[in-house]
Amino acid sequence: MSFFKEYRLTDATTFKTEIQGEGYGKLVNLKDHEETKFALTESMTCPAGHYRIEIYVANLAGLPCAYVQGKIIQSDASWQASNFLGEAIDVGTSRYFDQVDQNPMQFVYTHELRQALKNETVNGGTLLDFGHDLTAKTRIAFNQGFRSVTLCYGESRTEALDVQDTYLKHQIREKNDPFGTYNEATQTYTTKLRAFRYIYLPGIQNLDDLGTLKVDFEFVKFPKISEFSAADKQLTQIWQISDRTLRLCSGIFFIDGVKRDRWVWAGDAFQCYAMNRYDFFDKELVERTILGLRGELDIKQHLDTIVDYSMYWLIGIEDYYETFADKHFLDVIYPKMKRLIDFALEAVDERGFIHERKGDWIYIDWADFDHQGPLCAEQMVLARALQSVVKIFTILDKNVAPYESLYQKLRVNIDKYYWDSQKHAYIDSYASGKHQVSRHANIFAILFDYVDQKRAQEILEHVLRNPEIAAINTPYFKFWELEAFAKMGEYQTILTTIKSYWGGMLESGATTFWEYFDPNEKGAARYAMYGDKYGKSLCHAWGASPLYLIGRYLVGLKPTKPGYQTFELAPQLALLGDFKGKFPISATGDTVSLEVQRNKLTVKATKVGGSIVVADKHLEIPVDKELVITMK
Amino acid sequence: MSFFKEYRLTDATTFKTEIQGEGYGKLVNLKDHEETKFALTESMTCPAGHYRIEIYVANLAGLPCAYVQGKIIQSDASWQASNFLGEAIDVGTSRYFDQVDQNPMQFVYTHELRQALKNETVNGGTLLDFGHDLTAKTRIAFNQGFRSVTLCYGESRTEALDVQDTYLKHQIREKNDPFGTYNEATQTYTTKLRAFRYIYLPGIQNLDDLGTLKVDFEFVKFPKISEFSAADKQLTQIWQISDRTLRLCSGIFFIDGVKRDRWVWAGDAFQCYAMNRYDFFDKELVERTILGLRGELDIKQHLDTIVDYSMYWLIGIEDYYETFADKHFLDVIYPKMKRLIDFALEAVDERGFIHERKGDWIYIDWADFDHQGPLCAEQMVLARALQSVVKIFTILDKNVAPYESLYQKLRVNIDKYYWDSQKHAYIDSYASGKHQVSRHANIFAILFDYVDQKRAQEILEHVLRNPEIAAINTPYFKFWELEAFAKMGEYQTILTTIKSYWGGMLESGATTFWEYFDPNEKGAARYAMYGDKYGKSLCHAWGASPLYLIGRYLVGLKPTKPGYQTFELAPQLALLGDFKGKFPISATGDTVSLEVQRNKLTVKATKVGGSIVVADKHLEIPVDKELVITMK
Repeated sequence: MSFFKEYRLTDATTFKTEIQGEGYGKLVNLKDHEETKFALTESMTCPAGHYRIEIYVANLAGLPCAYVQGKIIQSDASWQASNFLGEAIDVGTSRYFDQVDQNPMQFVYTHELRQALKNETVNGGTLLDFGHDLTAKTRIAFNQGFRSVTLCYGESRTEALDVQDTYLKHQIREKNDPFGTYNEATQTYTTKLRAFRYIYLPGIQNLDDLGTLKVDFEFVKFPKISEFSAADKQLTQIWQISDRTLRLCSGIFFIDGVKRDRWVWAGDAFQCYAMNRYDFFDKELVERTILGLRGELDIKQHLDTIVDYSMYWLIGIEDYYETFADKHFLDVIYPKMKRLIDFALEAVDERGFIHERKGDWIYIDWADFDHQGPLCAEQMVLARALQSVVKIFTILDKNVAPYESLYQKLRVNIDKYYWDSQKHAYIDSYASGKHQVSRHANIFAILFDYVDQKRAQEILEHVLRNPEIAAINTPYFKFWELEAFAKMGEYQTILTTIKSYWGGMLESGATTFWEYFDPNEKGAARYAMYGDKYGKSLCHAWGASPLYLIGRYLVGLKPTKPGYQTFELAPQLALLGDFKGKFPISATGDTVSLEVQRNKLTVKATKVGGSIVVADKHLEIPVDKELVITMK
Repeated sequence: MSFFKEYRLTDATTFKTEIQGEGYGKLVNLKDHEETKFALTESMTCPAGHYRIEIYVANLAGLPCAYVQGKIIQSDASWQASNFLGEAIDVGTSRYFDQVDQNPMQFVYTHELRQALKNETVNGGTLLDFGHDLTAKTRIAFNQGFRSVTLCYGESRTEALDVQDTYLKHQIREKNDPFGTYNEATQTYTTKLRAFRYIYLPGIQNLDDLGTLKVDFEFVKFPKISEFSAADKQLTQIWQISDRTLRLCSGIFFIDGVKRDRWVWAGDAFQCYAMNRYDFFDKELVERTILGLRGELDIKQHLDTIVDYSMYWLIGIEDYYETFADKHFLDVIYPKMKRLIDFALEAVDERGFIHERKGDWIYIDWADFDHQGPLCAEQMVLARALQSVVKIFTILDKNVAPYESLYQKLRVNIDKYYWDSQKHAYIDSYASGKHQVSRHANIFAILFDYVDQKRAQEILEHVLRNPEIAAINTPYFKFWELEAFAKMGEYQTILTTIKSYWGGMLESGATTFWEYFDPNEKGAARYAMYGDKYGKSLCHAWGASPLYLIGRYLVGLKPTKPGYQTFELAPQLALLGDFKGKFPISATGDTVSLEVQRNKLTVKATKVGGSIVVADKHLEIPVDKELVITMK
């Protein structure tokens, strides 16, 4: 890479460059085009005049990057970069890396040493309870030097105590193994990073005999921006535990869960973008996740191999723009959007329907779909992705005609082939003749505004409120099912479901929200998934969707122009009762706060553009002072 | 990556795996599909039965690779690999890496400590002469501890003594700097790798006062296979110095020159492939160079940014197949061939002519072409590349129709637009109206068989033998000019030119052959290039082409079926006089030897398929015994 910037200097000025990799500098006098190479080991002085500073960096094992220090000449977002292919682009910068001794290949985490909140002797061993899931390294400081010990990790008490079958067990037998290291000087053994709430040490009756055990909790400290509390204590608790769950799953990227898979899945991440808006509103985290998911320009398979996940990635760009209104990022991501949609469209037939190719996975949800021929829900998601493509490409002034016309054809054919007027529902497959109805395609139809009011009512009655249609069991799709209810104005259903479904997890002892919850499962069976006794993740990002559902539909906050240039609050006052909330409305720390105490509503914002809807009236939200509304 | 292989075992067997990166193993019982994960830190035992061994390796900073040791289970070319995209492929292996403690990211060089052949006091300093160019680290063992010293490197004596302007000067002022390191224990300073014949130490009257200076020559030891000596001592010397030049420029890849650029240029490399056939016949070196030049599948610019260099890369694949007949490598390289030709064809107009796009470089040679509109020589190279594409794709049973028809159109239009019957030559440009004739397009026309005998004669007379047409000054194009003469049966011209042009370099003191030679340049001017006083490379691979010209045209060896399945010798006996030669005819060490002493020709080969043409008679070359022909 080369990094460069022009300077017009009235006096000579000195600067020093640190790089990651190998490289050199070049000083180009833009008057006579004389070039001076210089080594980066020492300070360099740029004389008065019109110069371009060029820093060349090669790094085959990581990120080529540079840090320039000087009174005038300094690295910042105004520099440009080139890899010698095509036009130069603006350099990337990160607010996490502003010190010269930092290496951008080593993400800076916050560390917190924690002790167990509870220490209990069970079955002749010691059970430690840290209160909720953590991602941490375990440190054992031995009293009398190293000795063998076994750590049984558990997200649940049941799992930790199941010495035979716990998902993560570490039998420390040697001082150094691939899963940990021993420090002779401090007599301390430190494990690799693991996620757990409990640690059980079988055979250790008294931990003090062994030494002390602390865990080094490793996380990214996103600022505390949002607040929410309601007279309904359960709802308050659901919001808090959702917040904890999302934070634990947020780091360099939005990952799915802390124990498993610790992976960036595009569908899961897409829901995190929505939650992020109502929690810590981190712009870089969304950008990193979007970029990380997509990888290099050339593409050979769908994101995470899942066709629908590629589609959510595309829709996620629209969501990104609506949230942050950063057109610069759209420019950066555009080639990757175009290549991805074109890759997807290679599997589209003459009706516009997308098919499964070898190696593709048509997922949608953990549910029993009729997968014969193209699946209806997949076509809905493709149509929605095409809308995002058209919207973003239009902003970037690119040709949208082929995507627009395919979208139109697809919409017509979805209705023609999948709508079953006798079932009053979209069916999974037109190819099988089974006319199976699942909730998913019907949820999307409402969510994406693909049905008129009449058909939406049919779906509500014959699918969403029909107990004979298999229920949604993942919080992942529960998210969209509840959004569909919201679209239909069924806010009471949202509140009731949040309280029963997420409340049900709380009653089952959850201190973070789960990957999957079926109220009918009892005992250890609740923890099984994917054929593994403890395969279920008990701290799963998509479990945190009440953050979004409460913020977006009960508190009723949404941007009405990209980047919250204008925004609206439409709280469901009758449902919430007394409550208090604060939510972000920009990536630079702006917030809107509101509080309801009996018949008094107080609202204020730190920036212009807000309006509040109360009793069908739109009132402007004042900046840095309170608007008090007294309700009848 | 995953590496895997199936075994059917009658007894249990143990193996141990070393990897570069992080990973784990999996043992899959192919009867009951039970999977057992295992750590790679310890030996693993595979039970009797039908199993698949899977080794998973992740390496973000280099090559993911594995080395499996065991009595039965061992890594070799029979394993397969997958990056989880598409079909599995055969693993790559390398004969350079057959020891468990080797890291395939560190190429193994041979080292040889050398002392100067000559040590001379000049201008109050010491001048060391190592006899010819070397790529080496300089080691100074100080008598009385570290002291400042300056090293002025030179490929020529003139350069080394020019303390002010030498291309590479190293002022050692500190014990450790980016260009070297000091070992306190041995009081030895070791520099970075540099290429030079001479080192001048200004101010050091007596080297013994300072200490001892040796250089650590670093190279890949390709076997000595070819031999050539003739009664003509100058011709023998030209062959030997060509061999030295090519070897110095051959390592992990074929590079252009040792001092400058130390870079893999596709055009230069293409000529090296030809020379390699008549010298050490290294198959892996050609494969590494082909792969290294092309990089990843997706392509954004031409190889080295040069359009013609992309074309030579394509033609080089045909040359590779003709030399080694390895269809497996064609399978590997096919997607990259297809993507490259398709990328190139994006810049082709309705006549089939390729144009220069922004960022493209239409090079052909260091010569003054009429560059207005598409250049004739470039169209010739495109046509030739299309032929290679058609030939290779046909072998691989791929669709060649679009390439074939474009080739036909292009050939017709080249003749229609560029042939100037009044000039009896192809002109550079039809767009400018200048009708400028350069040698290059005309050389290609003969070389690629694009002209009939009549037109070839016109070109010979009006271009190649016409002193008014600017001469070729690079050995690079001299190569092809001489091949064109050979095509016309002008072997005497080849011999004469080799002796005058390369002989001219010898007379100028060359001990390796140069990047560029103009007999009219005298003194220090001979060393200048690219606006730099010592910019010219004096050890440049393309300078070694007598290896090929002698072997291919004077000795007359060529394969007549791919991979030398059959081959032919047609020596120019009248021109060579008494001579002796041995040349490779396979990548596994087969050779053909011949010797002429007065009227007796002796020839033998180590494998079948050879024939020798003497006095228009074709005689079979016997295997492992001599055929003696007595000539009238």
